[in-house]
Amino acid sequence: MEPKFNTRQLIKRALAEDIGRGDITTCAIIGREETGRARAIAKSPLVVAGLNVFAEVFLCLDPAMEISCFVAEGKRVNPGEILLTLKGNLRSILTAERVALNLLQRLCGIATLTRAYVDAVAGTGVKILDTRKTTPGLRSLEKYAVHMGGGCNHRFGLDDGILIKDNHLWAAGSVAAAIERARQAAHHLLKIEVEVKNLAELKEALAAGADVIMLDNMSLDQIKEAVGFTAGRVPLEVSGNVTLADVRKIAATGVNFISAGALTHSAPAADISLLLGADERG
Amino acid sequence: MEPKFNTRQLIKRALAEDIGRGDITTCAIIGREETGRARAIAKSPLVVAGLNVFAEVFLCLDPAMEISCFVAEGKRVNPGEILLTLKGNLRSILTAERVALNLLQRLCGIATLTRAYVDAVAGTGVKILDTRKTTPGLRSLEKYAVHMGGGCNHRFGLDDGILIKDNHLWAAGSVAAAIERARQAAHHLLKIEVEVKNLAELKEALAAGADVIMLDNMSLDQIKEAVGFTAGRVPLEVSGNVTLADVRKIAATGVNFISAGALTHSAPAADISLLLGADERG
Amino acid sequence: MEPKFNTRQLIKRALAEDIGRGDITTCAIIGREETGRARAIAKSPLVVAGLNVFAEVFLCLDPAMEISCFVAEGKRVNPGEILLTLKGNLRSILTAERVALNLLQRLCGIATLTRAYVDAVAGTGVKILDTRKTTPGLRSLEKYAVHMGGGCNHRFGLDDGILIKDNHLWAAGSVAAAIERARQAAHHLLKIEVEVKNLAELKEALAAGADVIMLDNMSLDQIKEAVGFTAGRVPLEVSGNVTLADVRKIAATGVNFISAGALTHSAPAADISLLLGADERG
Amino acid sequence: MEPKFNTRQLIKRALAEDIGRGDITTCAIIGREETGRARAIAKSPLVVAGLNVFAEVFLCLDPAMEISCFVAEGKRVNPGEILLTLKGNLRSILTAERVALNLLQRLCGIATLTRAYVDAVAGTGVKILDTRKTTPGLRSLEKYAVHMGGGCNHRFGLDDGILIKDNHLWAAGSVAAAIERARQAAHHLLKIEVEVKNLAELKEALAAGADVIMLDNMSLDQIKEAVGFTAGRVPLEVSGNVTLADVRKIAATGVNFISAGALTHSAPAADISLLLGADERG
Amino acid sequence: MEPKFNTRQLIKRALAEDIGRGDITTCAIIGREETGRARAIAKSPLVVAGLNVFAEVFLCLDPAMEISCFVAEGKRVNPGEILLTLKGNLRSILTAERVALNLLQRLCGIATLTRAYVDAVAGTGVKILDTRKTTPGLRSLEKYAVHMGGGCNHRFGLDDGILIKDNHLWAAGSVAAAIERARQAAHHLLKIEVEVKNLAELKEALAAGADVIMLDNMSLDQIKEAVGFTAGRVPLEVSGNVTLADVRKIAATGVNFISAGALTHSAPAADISLLLGADERG
Amino acid sequence: MEPKFNTRQLIKRALAEDIGRGDITTCAIIGREETGRARAIAKSPLVVAGLNVFAEVFLCLDPAMEISCFVAEGKRVNPGEILLTLKGNLRSILTAERVALNLLQRLCGIATLTRAYVDAVAGTGVKILDTRKTTPGLRSLEKYAVHMGGGCNHRFGLDDGILIKDNHLWAAGSVAAAIERARQAAHHLLKIEVEVKNLAELKEALAAGADVIMLDNMSLDQIKEAVGFTAGRVPLEVSGNVTLADVRKIAATGVNFISAGALTHSAPAADISLLLGADERG
Repeated sequence: MEPKFNTRQLIKRALAEDIGRGDITTCAIIGREETGRARAIAKSPLVVAGLNVFAEVFLCLDPAMEISCFVAEGKRVNPGEILLTLKGNLRSILTAERVALNLLQRLCGIATLTRAYVDAVAGTGVKILDTRKTTPGLRSLEKYAVHMGGGCNHRFGLDDGILIKDNHLWAAGSVAAAIERARQAAHHLLKIEVEVKNLAELKEALAAGADVIMLDNMSLDQIKEAVGFTAGRVPLEVSGNVTLADVRKIAATGVNFISAGALTHSAPAADISLLLGADERG
Repeated sequence: MEPKFNTRQLIKRALAEDIGRGDITTCAIIGREETGRARAIAKSPLVVAGLNVFAEVFLCLDPAMEISCFVAEGKRVNPGEILLTLKGNLRSILTAERVALNLLQRLCGIATLTRAYVDAVAGTGVKILDTRKTTPGLRSLEKYAVHMGGGCNHRFGLDDGILIKDNHLWAAGSVAAAIERARQAAHHLLKIEVEVKNLAELKEALAAGADVIMLDNMSLDQIKEAVGFTAGRVPLEVSGNVTLADVRKIAATGVNFISAGALTHSAPAADISLLLGADERG
Repeated sequence: MEPKFNTRQLIKRALAEDIGRGDITTCAIIGREETGRARAIAKSPLVVAGLNVFAEVFLCLDPAMEISCFVAEGKRVNPGEILLTLKGNLRSILTAERVALNLLQRLCGIATLTRAYVDAVAGTGVKILDTRKTTPGLRSLEKYAVHMGGGCNHRFGLDDGILIKDNHLWAAGSVAAAIERARQAAHHLLKIEVEVKNLAELKEALAAGADVIMLDNMSLDQIKEAVGFTAGRVPLEVSGNVTLADVRKIAATGVNFISAGALTHSAPAADISLLLGADERG
Repeated sequence: MEPKFNTRQLIKRALAEDIGRGDITTCAIIGREETGRARAIAKSPLVVAGLNVFAEVFLCLDPAMEISCFVAEGKRVNPGEILLTLKGNLRSILTAERVALNLLQRLCGIATLTRAYVDAVAGTGVKILDTRKTTPGLRSLEKYAVHMGGGCNHRFGLDDGILIKDNHLWAAGSVAAAIERARQAAHHLLKIEVEVKNLAELKEALAAGADVIMLDNMSLDQIKEAVGFTAGRVPLEVSGNVTLADVRKIAATGVNFISAGALTHSAPAADISLLLGADERG
Repeated sequence: MEPKFNTRQLIKRALAEDIGRGDITTCAIIGREETGRARAIAKSPLVVAGLNVFAEVFLCLDPAMEISCFVAEGKRVNPGEILLTLKGNLRSILTAERVALNLLQRLCGIATLTRAYVDAVAGTGVKILDTRKTTPGLRSLEKYAVHMGGGCNHRFGLDDGILIKDNHLWAAGSVAAAIERARQAAHHLLKIEVEVKNLAELKEALAAGADVIMLDNMSLDQIKEAVGFTAGRVPLEVSGNVTLADVRKIAATGVNFISAGALTHSAPAADISLLLGADERG
Repeated sequence: MEPKFNTRQLIKRALAEDIGRGDITTCAIIGREETGRARAIAKSPLVVAGLNVFAEVFLCLDPAMEISCFVAEGKRVNPGEILLTLKGNLRSILTAERVALNLLQRLCGIATLTRAYVDAVAGTGVKILDTRKTTPGLRSLEKYAVHMGGGCNHRFGLDDGILIKDNHLWAAGSVAAAIERARQAAHHLLKIEVEVKNLAELKEALAAGADVIMLDNMSLDQIKEAVGFTAGRVPLEVSGNVTLADVRKIAATGVNFISAGALTHSAPAADISLLLGADERG
């Protein structure tokens, strides 16, 4: 998705943040040339995302580390399953462990939560979307995790999609004015999405030629009415505090997309451990 | 805690990640010189942390932005309370909004969860500690948020404290050997903490002169036994999947510290909005 | 278009490249505190673009430099016209001169050439587009110069638009397969443009649902045939060695967009001088 | 000429500028592991410069790319000639293509134009020099291209040569004063060149001990007079809007160097294509 | 001690500083593909530190350089001894030579001076410590050199140890107040050291629970008195203009640590040469 | 000498190196808003260099710091003299102190040692030169300190002067061949210096047209002979283990330049303290 050196930069910064001037405990206890093996093991049911990133952290400290993945990205695993094994410089394994786990646990957490949303709307044809409510510095990785969980990505930043939000409308004075200005400025490969909060705005947006419309924080009844009125003329996206409990009901209204910030800003970390020691498979 | 230019760097990277080549929606709709006001408002009960960082994001894009804080860091606020007001370049407000909120909601989320743990052990004298299970790139800020929530910080990285963990013990062969090597290598202002998982290891660590001992994933009964055996000779820290439901019972055993990774890796984002428009106070 | 600190970074790198360890001539001859005035003057007819960047170069070395612009971005000027005056530290003026002129002359050169293309198609409704054939490191600025010359911007990079080119088609095996895969992967705010080199491919692209079609290196007759066949169903873009001599004829065929790499990769530098000395207006 | 990691940095920045968050078209259409071949082919007569840089761009994305050069740097080639072949990861080939061509076309363009100037003065013993009128960020590469075109490099920046220009003279008050101050400050391995615009200044510069003298924007008659008066005491350099049409006449006056900003600031890009597909030589 | 990419960064910056736009002498005289051998030879008696860093400088320019070390870090060598041999690209050897020697001579200089201090206190059990009076940018390497010379490292920065100095005491108002505030803020793995300049302050520090006490600029008699009074309750560190001539007398008083800024800020460079040419061992 | 942002970068890196995640002692003891005064005082006789850099370190942490200099750069001062006073945020003063002093003490140390060499050759007309034996990362500052001590700067790097050393001669095969190749490659504003180690090489260098000749590690008698033979045809530079004791005798031989690596690689740090507290002048 992104040039490999970007992820490398992120990992180097994360390692520098954690290691600072050196892992004094590991350097004191482990010899410079000692080698070892370790296994990353799931301790809760989870959907896998980020084993490649996890591996890259160790490779940053020991380019000769031997790494074997036992599970494909996007797969569900049960507690106790081995995700990946490492064999290489022991200091590097111990020093990189925390950073590697911090990344992997977050990404698996996001993929796991996304999968729950996606499963909840199974069969409806609705796509679950992420948002820009991601961790500063980790957006590409977190959006990758959403994808691994079966979700779809919304725009990646402020520059690859036009989304006119309530604050823009407030500043522009009218839905029509905002859409017209956006159409003038956007390049010819971009569609224009507008956020509306009631039926009146929806009608205005449709009349002004919006390509996609976001129904923001509407009740289920409002959503149904919006779907009826729109009648398939443009795709509709529902957004705003969508919970796992509600998502199927919303999907049943006939909208096209449901986006949820919680996928990235509130997914609990997945529980994964790194165990040192021999393993028949590693 | 850290030189100001570090936080600036983080914010610039976060803005670059979100803005990319430009906020095309805002630039299309809002004039370059337009100004406006906005209010950050709590939408759920929360403990405040990071308003300074939130403000800094806007100052990055408009150094002349006028910012007023209405709540002190570490305070509890109720839904509807105004946290901060902005007045300045309207494009800057809209373009910086998401990054600023992403940071603030995370930090308030951590402070709020930490406060819940701290309140749960009120009166016991136990200190709630964070861990190194923080978001890559955000450790300093997240540990600051723990502090604002009433928690205490554990070491900041691998270089400012000696903590001998199970994997180190496994590699060293014995608790005594690990402690001895750490003592040799550490500078004379560092204490040595050892993680133990049963009473046998605890005894070994005490005999070998550990300065602090971490009881890892022990049952309540084991913890009680450890407290009894230690008899105040060294401080004890409990660690390992500590939940809000259990934390008071653990604190009642007489240990000194309880650390919880969940404070930083699984705190749900606090709900906060930025509203454009006039405000009598702003 | 972009956060200001990006342009600052570019300018700092350009100054570092030119200054290296110091401007030894200027430091030898001019006192540290001497001040002076200078005027940037057009020496050929040109369209102005980049005076803000020009000014920023001097501000980088002397934040107290007083700068007055006498011409608006996008305006035509005649030889002899003063574009901008400077007043401030004399060393800074002399040291920054070359980098500032290198940037300004290039940007004005691009705006001037673009304006010639735009004028050539006046009244046809056709939009002149730039391409990704820009100078490495200067894309945002060069696309800004195209805009100041009256042109429109095509996508800014590989991530904010889908453009399926001949090499993609060759690899995908068919136009339909390529479009289908792009539709699956792109987020819902992106249109899909396909490059075709004959009528057969055009028909395939229309059938497969392309949103925009690029006619690559077609003869005028082929273009006319394509316009006729398409009949307004999707916008058409002409691309491939479009010269100033041909552009009006192409525009007359009824296509919507004409893109030209020459706007950025082969525009001759505009002729502009910086003169030291007193000036009644400065 | 420069440590290899500098060019790497430049290329990485150029790739980041173009790729942004990812090449969405290529990632959608081409499988991660697909491989392919491609040929870079000249489409106009040109002098080759920068195949090493071109290759490096692809190596940045795929370190295992197999690359074969078929033409030496500095050689003339005809339309249709294969310059270089690639074999490796297909995504990398397609994603790096534009940045690699942007660099190569510019460098070949410069080498080709320089060669025209050099050929025009063949037999006169005059050396064609470049200037500091280079693209910000690309100076080393562009000066390398001049060298490949048969030209010689003037100083690389403000720190590796003393060149007293009109603005310095204006500030110093006299040619003699400027030269004296420069002599004091420069280290003992640097010569001092002075720009003069008439015979009076030339005499003053000679009297003050200039090591090299630049005749700025003089007419052919003035140049002849200057050559006569100088009589070989110091080398003379002609500068100022030198065109290909005039350069031989200027060379015939007996000056030593002719410098031309156009070599770098106004060279049209050379026409080069990258074609995918099998090739008997690749 | 530190992640390898930190040292790499330092070396790259040092090479960039020295090479600038290119080693023009070497590039002019030596062919791009020429190879050669070289030996690093001690020209004065010295203690070795930094051969790994020395080697890394050459590897930065030629990753295929063959390097053999003949002496272990921390060893004493006599004039004439070969420390290390190189075989590889000749340009790289000549271009990297000065930076590599500048680093090696400084580190060996520090190790050699440290060894003299350590030898001077042999048998007393006192540990010789470094300080934060290191060269900006080189702290990790210089502290490594102290370690190779037989010394021990004090804290590495302001964040991995609490040291309350005279200026802190002046600001806090009292020794007790300063210690109390530090205890509150420091994490639980850090000891607290206090600098005292007389017996009164020493007593106050002991009473307030300092973990370590630094005797700053005290006379030998004062130090003896302090040792007597302290009676082993906490470790004592002597600091302040400790010379090689005095260090044994100070050690004999019974203190635990002696720190000396001179180890790093005033160690003369060791004399080491790099000789080109064949060598029977290389 | 260099653009200001370079020194800023150096200082920021030095502060980051020392401060790491925060000055935990100062933050614990001093309130965030407390202010104070401090004086930098000479504790040994010294020549001042670097007060501007010293000041910049404090300004980095507190841009509002009030700073007054009491001594001009390049002046001698006696022990007890106040060099500079500070007034501003107390935390910033204490946190920046060590980095600021590390830089100032080194630069004053260099200026002081240089002044001793310069004074030793007073009246002979000989110029004392520095070398490239500087601290990695600090070259510009250290060469500035040499200048403040009355010395002259040799070339700043490998790119702003041609110096053919013994290893180049060894590789080129002959002095004449080396000079010829350098003449071809160097731009026309650079002189060519050659290092020779005996009279035979001197003669060869003169015959081949060297512009400057360095006499490397010659005895006094050899130097005299070289001066006699050269008879003023080119300037001569003496280099190689020049001590303060010998320098006047060497100068008396009639050479033009004497360079000494010791000026920068072995100058002991000057003794300077920063004292907190009131001062009638500050």
